[in-house]
Amino acid sequence: MNGAGNLMDFLDEPFPDVGTYEDFHTIDWLREKSRDTDRHRKITSKSKESFWELIKSLLDAWSGWVVMLLIGLLSGTLAGVIDLAVDWMTDLKEGVCLTAFWYSHEQCCWTSNETTFDDRDKCPQWQKWAELMTGHAEGAGAYVLNYFLYVLWALLFSFLAVSLVRVFAPYACGSGIPEIKTILSGFIIRGYLGKWTLLIKTVTLVLAVSSGLSLGKEGPLVHVACCCGNLFCSLFSKYSKNEGKRREVLSAAAAAGVSVAFGAPIGGVLFSLEEVSYYFPLKTLWRSFFAALVAAFTLRAINPFGNSRLVLFYVEYHTPWYMAELVPFILLGVFGGLWGTLFIKANIAWCRRRKTTQLGKYPVLEVIAVTGITALLAFPNPYTRRSTSELISELFNDCGALESSQLCDYINNPNMSRPVDDIPDRPAGPGVYNALWQLALALVFKIVITIFTFGMKIPSGLFIPSMAVGAIAGRIVGIAVEQMAYHHHDWIIFKNWCRPGADCVTPGLYAMVGAAACLGGVTRMTVSLVVIMFELTGGLEYIVPLMAAAVTSKWVADAFGKEGIYESHIQLNGYPYLDVRDEFTHRTLATDVMRPRRNDPPLAVLTQDSTTVEDVETLIKDTDYNGFPVVVSRESERLIGFVQRRDLTLAIKTARQKQDGVVSSSVVYFTEDAPQLPASNPQPLKLRRILNLSPFTVTDHTPMETVVDIFRKLGLRQCLVTRSGRLLGIITKKDVLRHMAQMMNQDPESIMFN
Amino acid sequence: MNGAGNLMDFLDEPFPDVGTYEDFHTIDWLREKSRDTDRHRKITSKSKESFWELIKSLLDAWSGWVVMLLIGLLSGTLAGVIDLAVDWMTDLKEGVCLTAFWYSHEQCCWTSNETTFDDRDKCPQWQKWAELMTGHAEGAGAYVLNYFLYVLWALLFSFLAVSLVRVFAPYACGSGIPEIKTILSGFIIRGYLGKWTLLIKTVTLVLAVSSGLSLGKEGPLVHVACCCGNLFCSLFSKYSKNEGKRREVLSAAAAAGVSVAFGAPIGGVLFSLEEVSYYFPLKTLWRSFFAALVAAFTLRAINPFGNSRLVLFYVEYHTPWYMAELVPFILLGVFGGLWGTLFIKANIAWCRRRKTTQLGKYPVLEVIAVTGITALLAFPNPYTRRSTSELISELFNDCGALESSQLCDYINNPNMSRPVDDIPDRPAGPGVYNALWQLALALVFKIVITIFTFGMKIPSGLFIPSMAVGAIAGRIVGIAVEQMAYHHHDWIIFKNWCRPGADCVTPGLYAMVGAAACLGGVTRMTVSLVVIMFELTGGLEYIVPLMAAAVTSKWVADAFGKEGIYESHIQLNGYPYLDVRDEFTHRTLATDVMRPRRNDPPLAVLTQDSTTVEDVETLIKDTDYNGFPVVVSRESERLIGFVQRRDLTLAIKTARQKQDGVVSSSVVYFTEDAPQLPASNPQPLKLRRILNLSPFTVTDHTPMETVVDIFRKLGLRQCLVTRSGRLLGIITKKDVLRHMAQMMNQDPESIMFN
Repeated sequence: MNGAGNLMDFLDEPFPDVGTYEDFHTIDWLREKSRDTDRHRKITSKSKESFWELIKSLLDAWSGWVVMLLIGLLSGTLAGVIDLAVDWMTDLKEGVCLTAFWYSHEQCCWTSNETTFDDRDKCPQWQKWAELMTGHAEGAGAYVLNYFLYVLWALLFSFLAVSLVRVFAPYACGSGIPEIKTILSGFIIRGYLGKWTLLIKTVTLVLAVSSGLSLGKEGPLVHVACCCGNLFCSLFSKYSKNEGKRREVLSAAAAAGVSVAFGAPIGGVLFSLEEVSYYFPLKTLWRSFFAALVAAFTLRAINPFGNSRLVLFYVEYHTPWYMAELVPFILLGVFGGLWGTLFIKANIAWCRRRKTTQLGKYPVLEVIAVTGITALLAFPNPYTRRSTSELISELFNDCGALESSQLCDYINNPNMSRPVDDIPDRPAGPGVYNALWQLALALVFKIVITIFTFGMKIPSGLFIPSMAVGAIAGRIVGIAVEQMAYHHHDWIIFKNWCRPGADCVTPGLYAMVGAAACLGGVTRMTVSLVVIMFELTGGLEYIVPLMAAAVTSKWVADAFGKEGIYESHIQLNGYPYLDVRDEFTHRTLATDVMRPRRNDPPLAVLTQDSTTVEDVETLIKDTDYNGFPVVVSRESERLIGFVQRRDLTLAIKTARQKQDGVVSSSVVYFTEDAPQLPASNPQPLKLRRILNLSPFTVTDHTPMETVVDIFRKLGLRQCLVTRSGRLLGIITKKDVLRHMAQMMNQDPESIMFN
Repeated sequence: MNGAGNLMDFLDEPFPDVGTYEDFHTIDWLREKSRDTDRHRKITSKSKESFWELIKSLLDAWSGWVVMLLIGLLSGTLAGVIDLAVDWMTDLKEGVCLTAFWYSHEQCCWTSNETTFDDRDKCPQWQKWAELMTGHAEGAGAYVLNYFLYVLWALLFSFLAVSLVRVFAPYACGSGIPEIKTILSGFIIRGYLGKWTLLIKTVTLVLAVSSGLSLGKEGPLVHVACCCGNLFCSLFSKYSKNEGKRREVLSAAAAAGVSVAFGAPIGGVLFSLEEVSYYFPLKTLWRSFFAALVAAFTLRAINPFGNSRLVLFYVEYHTPWYMAELVPFILLGVFGGLWGTLFIKANIAWCRRRKTTQLGKYPVLEVIAVTGITALLAFPNPYTRRSTSELISELFNDCGALESSQLCDYINNPNMSRPVDDIPDRPAGPGVYNALWQLALALVFKIVITIFTFGMKIPSGLFIPSMAVGAIAGRIVGIAVEQMAYHHHDWIIFKNWCRPGADCVTPGLYAMVGAAACLGGVTRMTVSLVVIMFELTGGLEYIVPLMAAAVTSKWVADAFGKEGIYESHIQLNGYPYLDVRDEFTHRTLATDVMRPRRNDPPLAVLTQDSTTVEDVETLIKDTDYNGFPVVVSRESERLIGFVQRRDLTLAIKTARQKQDGVVSSSVVYFTEDAPQLPASNPQPLKLRRILNLSPFTVTDHTPMETVVDIFRKLGLRQCLVTRSGRLLGIITKKDVLRHMAQMMNQDPESIMFN
């Protein structure tokens, strides 16, 4: 320090908002991490001072676990409430319970004592609308009335959903996973995980699912869980004031979301690790697991499915699978891959159309129209009329002896005894053929309508519709193989493992394999997909078919385009997301990517001790860069540090208000000591405190693949380029993303945010 | 290029050994990655040239999966063979099968037709040694003879094991996991994963386990699987020539190793991710899973346990657990944590003694002595005489109606009907009390002997002994709680959930929880531990007790020291391992760590165009640095690049042999164009090709926590330190590790390798 006492660094005390980020900007992971270490150091050193500080430091250390517990409890509860509400409202479209209108069909008949086990879906307390209103349960008139009311309820629900989203929380629409991936990778979207979004998304999710649209609640549940995570972050300054730490909590919350969506805690953690998370330290792994378990057990305590099961689709198969069946399983994998490709291409094309044409201006009308068409086409077909989860559940299930479904209408051989668990192969009855037709129609319907549904301005998940498409296709293939085996026991392929009278083909397993294949094709999940399916079946027995289908589906889909649906939507929206999986293999160097380019004006820099306040203010006004490098002098171009635009603006504003003598012609200096100035000069302004003295640099010869790797692994926001110690230029995350888009022959202007 | 045509860069063609590493050196991950990208680019561009090249590029793309398949097949097969051999040789210590001497006790009696279900362990074909040799099966003489032969066999096996290890493959000893962790983090230990190590480790593992020493085969199986991985890497130049890619394969192999050790593929993948791996991209996750599954199914096809089960300890419990039981579960967690601490501290102290005193010079004697003591003490106690896995299996199992074990000697109430799956609580009989005494003795014995066993010069794993300690403690606690509940139904804590006649406490579950706690305390595994245990039980039902115990155990153990047993052994051996989990929270800066220190001679640098060949050779001779920074001139100290010592030596040697006119006074230059020299000077030598133009730099003000983070995430070997564009010093991985050791008040000289 030099002699002038009043020249002390007035910024020694931090002033508000330094180090925060603006909306739609990228965070600097390294800075967040270093801020957290500072905070931690402070607490540790304070904790030795007094008992109270020690308690506070312990509380701080435990706050992570407390947040996880709260997330688990709240997201489990919300999932339970959503499940119950969806059940009730889905049934409300068809009829009402006379004992209590808030009972769903199943609850209504369970509480009734008159039900026998065989016919547990029929009880006098439950009345369809036509029966209630006209007294006639059967006949064409009743059918038309029921049909009409079904469509009407659907329209009402979806209108409510879209209106609530539009008025209160525009961020509540869609599945939310693309945005959460982007946020977790270090991007700020204020309000995306806010309280209003949480509330509105929960309510409209119920409405949207109940309206019978071809969408699921699984993706949005991840969004809901992340909103819970964000909510509880605000309880602890450790998380609310550090964007990096906050993202650790959100990663765990995403795991809890999948955990409650499927009842698969391990699958949820792996989903978060594989699909959504960006920075996933081992500590987060363990905490995610805890949150996922708490969420799963909370949901089970609420018991919305009424069967004490943790999982959404509980299945138990009794027969093993055979090597030869791998052929149809792999074919289902191919189907899944093709469906994934078709869906992604068509859906993205349609969403792009929505963004660029008049269509996007009438979201309410669009939702109403799609709901109307869906309801009109869905009602006549029993497989599309009910909720999609019920459909999947029926398709997954094996035909036991007690099964009353149309799909299990096999012709029994009266000469054979029938133990419950061992049903010999049988010819299909007319019910099965009828069901096959209806399923084929349902398949086409689902494929087409889902393309138009995903991306509308209501909460909509993809998992369930994708799984439904796969399950229908799988069940059809399964029944075909089964009947082939029954009628052609003598064919070589069946001879060895499928003797007459043996129960050798399980169509339900085919449905499950098909569902995994289609889900894999759309999302490109791999390990987490197989683990979720494994948790549903609870046995390693069927993991090989599932893996075969998942691998095939991924390979087939990847052949047509590397991006899954979430990455495609990220691209469509132009979010600055640097995918960990994309391999950058081009030969470009840092010098090809950095700015300024050849014909650009020179790089906007500050000098360490010769810029005036006015110069700085002009620079801030004339440019929109996020920060400026500080060099020794314009001639030597030797780099000293980097200063953030936001911090600079705030510091100058604060100095002008609070520090006497700081005027436009004051010199700004970043060195430790004030520069030697003529006595006539106004008092200089010391800004060393906001200078980042360890900016990240690479040389101009660094290959871009290394630069991309550094950006990914260290979560940088920008990086300075030097040659033999001289500053040459700057590369920001946006530059990297634009360059990558260009190299892949995409429009570099599609990257929209900083 | 300047005019002189003969000045062209003769290094354009790579010469052998450039870019390889010396033994006991650290690899540079960024360079490996960039080399792989180059290779990939070449193949991709070639693949467009001809059909044959296309095929070759496809083969290259598939080679990863092929390697995984081969690893799965070989490690599954080896695990099966080891299991069968251990079974046979363990039984050989007690007796022999008369029908065929290569049958184990169980196989012998299974093939015999005279066995009834109740007494399947007793059959005339199986004879104990005393019976075979003297004809007397009972009596003191027979007991002594059996005892004597048991000890003799044990000594023979362990002598063979230690001799084989000493003579043929010194690296085959120990569990191998600390070394594999170090290798995966980017360290070269030639031969550690070689063919000889594979062969000798497999053979000696069988011998060591059969000798009855307190060790398991699980850890060494990971080493065996990694050796398989390394073996198959050599088939493909993609993996054999790139140390980074090789480590991806090894990570997957480690997963396959745990998968066959426990029959838990998902747990294996998570173990590899959480415990051993360093660089684990998503692609590796998927491939690890594949390798783990193939290995598990190969093992099942061999079916060494004879029960078609995938898992090592298959258990099925019939009663749920109750909230109040969490108290004993957490107590078991505390016990596990204390055991972990005790074991680590005592074992490390003993191993350090072995390293520093005379003891280490007699490894064979040590093994013989420990085996002798183990066998002498183990034989009298039925719970230590048999193999440890069998013991754990019995402790885990619930007492069903058909159980003939002494542990299940309960007094039955004759008035009660006994369905198989629902046994009311009963008072313990004399057999149980007897068993409790023997178990308590076995517990003390195992605790003490394991401390001395782990670390001897034979293959030895820790998982099984740790689990045995926990299982014994757990079972004792379980029986205590059970009997307390039986005798005090009226106590408040039992009143609500443990009515008379109800089967409310499962001692087997306590054993399992105890095993998880002890394993967690020693290894500090968390998620992978719970998932492995979950795969053993196959139900989410018991995951909460397991988690409670695992978390408690980790917290208790962490309170006494952060390192698990593997990290402690890494430290003991001074390997340069940069733990991902250690948080660096000190306030030091790069300038405090870099060399040269204040009083050191200046940094050894090369100039870009003024050093002669002789200067370079002197520098290489006088120093032992791994590489040298290249600067513009000694005055400006502006950094141009970095050159590896090994590459420099090779290049000069090659140039002196092959390039005319290169003599000691030739100038070495690293610039694009040759420097302007007087005509009398000898021909200069261009070495730009071996110059790394993108060395990693940080400023001297960079906090060390950021530097540590960069070293960890980018896998650097060294990093240059600059201030305002001038080169100040260098930080190597060894410097970072030494600094970290110093900050934790450890001896910085304990880091031994580069």
